Amino acid sequence: MAFKIGLLGLGTVGTGTVQILLDTNGRHPLLQGLSLHRVGVRSLSKPRQVELPETLLTTDLEEIVTDPNVDIVVELIGGLEPARSLILKAISHGKHVVTANKAVISRYADEIFTAANEKGVYVMLEAAVGGGIPVIQPLKQSLGANRIHRIMGIVNGTTNYILTRMQLEGVDFSEVLAIAQELGYAEADPTADVDGLDAADKIAILASLGFGGRIKLSEVYCEGIRNINASDISYADRLGFVIKLLAIASRDSQATAENDLLSIRVHPTLVPKAHPLASINDVYNAILIEGEPIGQVMFFGPGAGAGPTASAVVSDILNIAAVLNSPLSGEVHPLMSCTHQHYCNLAPMEDLITRFYARFITQDESGVIGKLGTCFGNHDVSIESIVQIDTHGELAEIVVVTHDVREGNFRQALDEIQSFNVVNRIPSILRVL
Amino acid sequence: MAFKIGLLGLGTVGTGTVQILLDTNGRHPLLQGLSLHRVGVRSLSKPRQVELPETLLTTDLEEIVTDPNVDIVVELIGGLEPARSLILKAISHGKHVVTANKAVISRYADEIFTAANEKGVYVMLEAAVGGGIPVIQPLKQSLGANRIHRIMGIVNGTTNYILTRMQLEGVDFSEVLAIAQELGYAEADPTADVDGLDAADKIAILASLGFGGRIKLSEVYCEGIRNINASDISYADRLGFVIKLLAIASRDSQATAENDLLSIRVHPTLVPKAHPLASINDVYNAILIEGEPIGQVMFFGPGAGAGPTASAVVSDILNIAAVLNSPLSGEVHPLMSCTHQHYCNLAPMEDLITRFYARFITQDESGVIGKLGTCFGNHDVSIESIVQIDTHGELAEIVVVTHDVREGNFRQALDEIQSFNVVNRIPSILRVL
Repeated sequence: MAFKIGLLGLGTVGTGTVQILLDTNGRHPLLQGLSLHRVGVRSLSKPRQVELPETLLTTDLEEIVTDPNVDIVVELIGGLEPARSLILKAISHGKHVVTANKAVISRYADEIFTAANEKGVYVMLEAAVGGGIPVIQPLKQSLGANRIHRIMGIVNGTTNYILTRMQLEGVDFSEVLAIAQELGYAEADPTADVDGLDAADKIAILASLGFGGRIKLSEVYCEGIRNINASDISYADRLGFVIKLLAIASRDSQATAENDLLSIRVHPTLVPKAHPLASINDVYNAILIEGEPIGQVMFFGPGAGAGPTASAVVSDILNIAAVLNSPLSGEVHPLMSCTHQHYCNLAPMEDLITRFYARFITQDESGVIGKLGTCFGNHDVSIESIVQIDTHGELAEIVVVTHDVREGNFRQALDEIQSFNVVNRIPSILRVL
Repeated sequence: MAFKIGLLGLGTVGTGTVQILLDTNGRHPLLQGLSLHRVGVRSLSKPRQVELPETLLTTDLEEIVTDPNVDIVVELIGGLEPARSLILKAISHGKHVVTANKAVISRYADEIFTAANEKGVYVMLEAAVGGGIPVIQPLKQSLGANRIHRIMGIVNGTTNYILTRMQLEGVDFSEVLAIAQELGYAEADPTADVDGLDAADKIAILASLGFGGRIKLSEVYCEGIRNINASDISYADRLGFVIKLLAIASRDSQATAENDLLSIRVHPTLVPKAHPLASINDVYNAILIEGEPIGQVMFFGPGAGAGPTASAVVSDILNIAAVLNSPLSGEVHPLMSCTHQHYCNLAPMEDLITRFYARFITQDESGVIGKLGTCFGNHDVSIESIVQIDTHGELAEIVVVTHDVREGNFRQALDEIQSFNVVNRIPSILRVL
């Protein structure tokens, strides 16, 4: 039986997907049972990188998601609307859906999976996180025996490229951003990437799968990399760290059997140089998953790009085709569906237990380090090191690294320190892995 | 519906598997529909790490694989026999099989999968390669859209531990082997590990899945690490490499559409320090897969151990339970079965195109380097560097690194060089990535 695909969007990833579907030799034989039935585009006259019969193209996307001949709708238009409505309409017409749309899935998972479960169709999203890296399917299937403790990754290629260049070339954020924009690694409006919003979408999706519950995106803590400067990268380097934008979802230390609390957050982080994530550079992505009994596994690869993302899209199509090919009697495949319905509880950031790095500009006079140390001690903040790293005229630059402390306590100490006459300002506060 | 598991073997991995099956809270909900029906052990009186009702235990393994109540047989006894016969008997009685047995699968895949396909049952083997690292399932499912070009990995923890210690501590093979044996990282008879046989089993399995054909294990080239000594590690280090035992399967450069030639081999390899595999240390495993259009993806994690391997075993059980749970009408799930039947053609090693490192002990006299260089040139072996690294009395130590050359040409040049009066011996010949 041949399954018919309706493709929405013929941009970079859409084109990569069509290229695989039209050239199946040497790939999985199941691909030969698939046919591209309709392709929805914005304009029929735009020049394209793939040759398609004109009869396949349409600008009427609604027509595709309601076409009774289409079995699988592949949504690659991105953005919130009309993507969300088209996905929902496809589901309501009994189509299976494959999407790379992290923004829609992280915001509307509840609505979309509830509709999909009611209709008995699959919504597959391997391409939404980590580009070509298989991570959604391993989380849903290969790691199912585990209790997941933590998912932690570099899931945004743009910011990783920027931080890598800053690290290697010692230049400041704005300078590298301009280069990244020229190279096409960063958008003209870089907000979604550099402010961590894209990474937040992705960690919300991974957390939902790993911890088996839905996630309110608005509760995910999100801090970007705009404030990272060359001095922090250089001081971190001296201390044995590189700075990476990490997306982290973990079971909170306060979690109990009754109250399963998660901590989900995106923020620049000092990562020890020997840590597996420290050497993930440029636009590469990596996701580290910790669980019991597996320990640590890491998935590494290209986090974006036409080919890798299309590889993930087509793997989802194959998975659906495989179960359609051997028709199931009634129930959906339990390792391919997302049936959890409850929302996870997220712990407030002040309850986070983490190490901190903070840089202070103070008057260069004796006793300052003692004052800082005493104040931290009063707030139960245990210090690993306080080092006067530099002096500029009358001012001293002091870097503090803490042991694991409660974030709320650290913030209270900082509030007090900020009011000290000898303290000029606190330009950097970063978490340490 | 509850599925019944018959477990063969209650060693390390068997115990880990039972621990997961008896403590399912917080793991995939599908586990709650599984029950441990029989457990086959060698002796009923041996003390155990898990408490099991005595009625579950039996020393009669045949009884388990023929028990009409058992749905899934989990083979964790290892070794060739009776493992092979028990797997075949389980299949002939219509049981699905989960195994961690790389030795049996790499030798008897043809027999086993032919029988399984005839009976319409699954034989799952995630635990056979890379311990807990999900790599079998990604190859069968997530990477199905790709044309695989190369699979390359560190798949034996024992040898990677030994090479890592040699690298970090500058000691010789035999010394580290003794320590590894004391720590339980190496067997009393370390042959299967240090001679590369275990890695050969594993790469044969990965190649079969990646390239969609069966592999004759006897045709896989296999060279272990016994001859690696501290000087080679130190010279490699100076040249910017670490030495790793790599298992590599790639499409041969001579492959054509008509003649799909593979090259499959296990050998110590000089790996550039910046390469992702160079930093995989100790007992960790990593598998790098290259394909079109995905580029490179890497899977990293614990390559052995009770917990990680049991995680892989149980993920296979879950996959089978998932399809049993939603009964298929007739056909088996095409992404879970292995239906290819042809054997792949393997290219002879002399046709391999690779870089080489070779160390020569020669008379310390002028003109030797010229003689070596001329001889290599005559055999079309292009040299990257010839360096006299050391002198010992009248003897000089010379290290040659080539560009990509045909292995046959390089071997012919070496034969000729060996006959030179000025050449004392050639203690090391290693391939370079």
